[in-house]
Amino acid sequence: SNTHRIAVLPGDGIGTEVTAATLAVLEPLAKRHGLGLAYDQLRAGAFCYRDTGTAMSEETFDRAAKADAILLGAMGWPEIRTDDGTEIAPQLDLRFRLNLYAGVRPFRALPGVPVALADPRARDIDFVLVRESTEGLFYSRDRGVVTHDMAEETLRITRAVTEKLARFSFNLARRRAARRGKPGTVTLVDKANVFRAFAFMRGIFSEIAADFPDVVHGAHYVDAMALDMVRKPWTLDVLPTENMFGDILSDLAAGLIGGMGFAPSADVGDTHAVFQPAHGTAPDIAGQGLANPTATILSAAMMLDWLAGKGAGQAYADAAAELDAAVDAAFADGLRTADIGGTDGTLAAARAVAAKIGSA
Amino acid sequence: SNTHRIAVLPGDGIGTEVTAATLAVLEPLAKRHGLGLAYDQLRAGAFCYRDTGTAMSEETFDRAAKADAILLGAMGWPEIRTDDGTEIAPQLDLRFRLNLYAGVRPFRALPGVPVALADPRARDIDFVLVRESTEGLFYSRDRGVVTHDMAEETLRITRAVTEKLARFSFNLARRRAARRGKPGTVTLVDKANVFRAFAFMRGIFSEIAADFPDVVHGAHYVDAMALDMVRKPWTLDVLPTENMFGDILSDLAAGLIGGMGFAPSADVGDTHAVFQPAHGTAPDIAGQGLANPTATILSAAMMLDWLAGKGAGQAYADAAAELDAAVDAAFADGLRTADIGGTDGTLAAARAVAAKIGSA
Ligand SMILES: CC(C)[C@H](C(=O)O)[C@@H](O)C(=O)O
Ligand SMILES: CC(C)[C@H](C(=O)O)[C@@H](O)C(=O)O
Repeated sequence: SNTHRIAVLPGDGIGTEVTAATLAVLEPLAKRHGLGLAYDQLRAGAFCYRDTGTAMSEETFDRAAKADAILLGAMGWPEIRTDDGTEIAPQLDLRFRLNLYAGVRPFRALPGVPVALADPRARDIDFVLVRESTEGLFYSRDRGVVTHDMAEETLRITRAVTEKLARFSFNLARRRAARRGKPGTVTLVDKANVFRAFAFMRGIFSEIAADFPDVVHGAHYVDAMALDMVRKPWTLDVLPTENMFGDILSDLAAGLIGGMGFAPSADVGDTHAVFQPAHGTAPDIAGQGLANPTATILSAAMMLDWLAGKGAGQAYADAAAELDAAVDAAFADGLRTADIGGTDGTLAAARAVAAKIGSA
Repeated sequence: SNTHRIAVLPGDGIGTEVTAATLAVLEPLAKRHGLGLAYDQLRAGAFCYRDTGTAMSEETFDRAAKADAILLGAMGWPEIRTDDGTEIAPQLDLRFRLNLYAGVRPFRALPGVPVALADPRARDIDFVLVRESTEGLFYSRDRGVVTHDMAEETLRITRAVTEKLARFSFNLARRRAARRGKPGTVTLVDKANVFRAFAFMRGIFSEIAADFPDVVHGAHYVDAMALDMVRKPWTLDVLPTENMFGDILSDLAAGLIGGMGFAPSADVGDTHAVFQPAHGTAPDIAGQGLANPTATILSAAMMLDWLAGKGAGQAYADAAAELDAAVDAAFADGLRTADIGGTDGTLAAARAVAAKIGSA
């Protein structure tokens, strides 16, 4: 059909605010490009857990799984925890249950948004972390063994998922190379100097690399990569990595380009995908209309592009490109959200972006 | 006795160069303060493994263990690996076998050395990572299980080591508070929102915190800490964390203050301690006299201070303070090593620091 059903899970805290702002921006965009987007608003998250005893009901999961794509705000709340002391994070369940192995997290310095590093080349930052999102250390979630004297978690890496992660990363580098007019590079981020599991992962990446002779292929230790992200992030391209490493590096990377408010993400599998900002629910500013919706808006652009790749049609790809451009234009034109020292709140930011749609 | 025996393990690559430079700086310092330092030069590392079949002989280990302190250069070489594909890293064996649970990694912006961040407050960076160095994910070294289809590693956290790590961190914060004239803060860096083992670790830190009412105590997720290190590192103080997290964050932190050439470290246990730069063997510049010896020189200052705490006498503490001050003075006076774009090589840097001894 020409209608694409989007499951919308606003979640907790600022999740609801940035989601509403993003839907407001999608409205004129959908009209202009003739997109048939139908939203299914669903409840899940920490407050859902507090009120109903479950963070995401099976019915909600089923409806999300049947949608063409899932747009998620943010979930979790410090004071609401499960019995073992961990937080409520149904977004992790979605990653596991829908096999969303590729956590795509692009980092780009937007025009007008201050970058953290003093080196002027930091304005050229444009790289993508591909955080494996179904195994690695997170395999151990709910599986940790705790006694009075010690606790253990298991990090697990499988050949099947690693092969998929590698192919996904090489394909992404190829697409980026075409767009950027320069060779693509895939650099696996691991700790193969110390752990057999990472030597195993490195071996699999080398095998798959043979199918992508046009893409430069390398590997780098995670500690050295953390250093490179501070010293020369403008040299980086596509960086696949283990789940826990990707979690840490993606916050570091967001810090380089203005903070989590500018970090969109897509958790992508073979059939399903969830699009959500990399930030959390921000209890300190929740409910005040202060949150920067940019990460969610850019996540929505990733969603439209992904739908285009799934056969939704060229209009979706065009709309995605225009949404990216509208965000750039709004910031280039003086939009300054509170997280970067400005005074524009959530709705003002959404309005500024919406105003650029159709004007590029 | 008045003589303190230092086991010196220069290791591989630039390890040998920075160690020699450091010993050259220690000579006038020892003379001036009447320190009785006797060196026992020992061979270990990747080339030792290649030539002898063992990275560190039992005899070498015994001699190192019997010394009053161990000064280490750097070890490892990309092309020399064990059968399972991991690198030669006998410094890890020292940490495990001597129970050096506290990996102390101080980060301070030195006068005249360019910092990475644009914010001028970055010149006030002065914090310490305390990387647990005997368990965590590194417990799994040599224990990883690999089949054709998957690989697993085990992250292990024990109550006994965590209690020691906590006490060490709170005591360190107390000493720093006295020196800096402001309250000390200990912030555990964990991932307690997802993993039971980290909720366990957090619980133990809270118990120990009760014995240190004068120290502010908090906890922060590792991803959020990676962001804070980029956004406001000048607010940080003492940061204990799990082994793998500490490995990643210490490279990030080094990047903030000029790179690994400025990152000293001490791996400290109840009875033994190893002092070594946080950097590796740098095969790309090894053998050329280009390496920055500052991290090793500052590690030697940590060694003298630690010996003072073990009863070597006030002269050792004074010498440590003077060595720190001499490094500061040399850079304030124009010393510029190659890693920060200057032309001063290893020996020139050592000479510049030595020249400041006795002049402060
Ligand atoms: C909220 C948390 C469980 C989550 C994670 O660790 O994956 C978040 O940090 C993220 O990066 O999506
Ligand atoms: C060389 C390597 C094994 C080592 C580690 O990972 O501990 C190094 O990175 C360090 O930080 O001391």
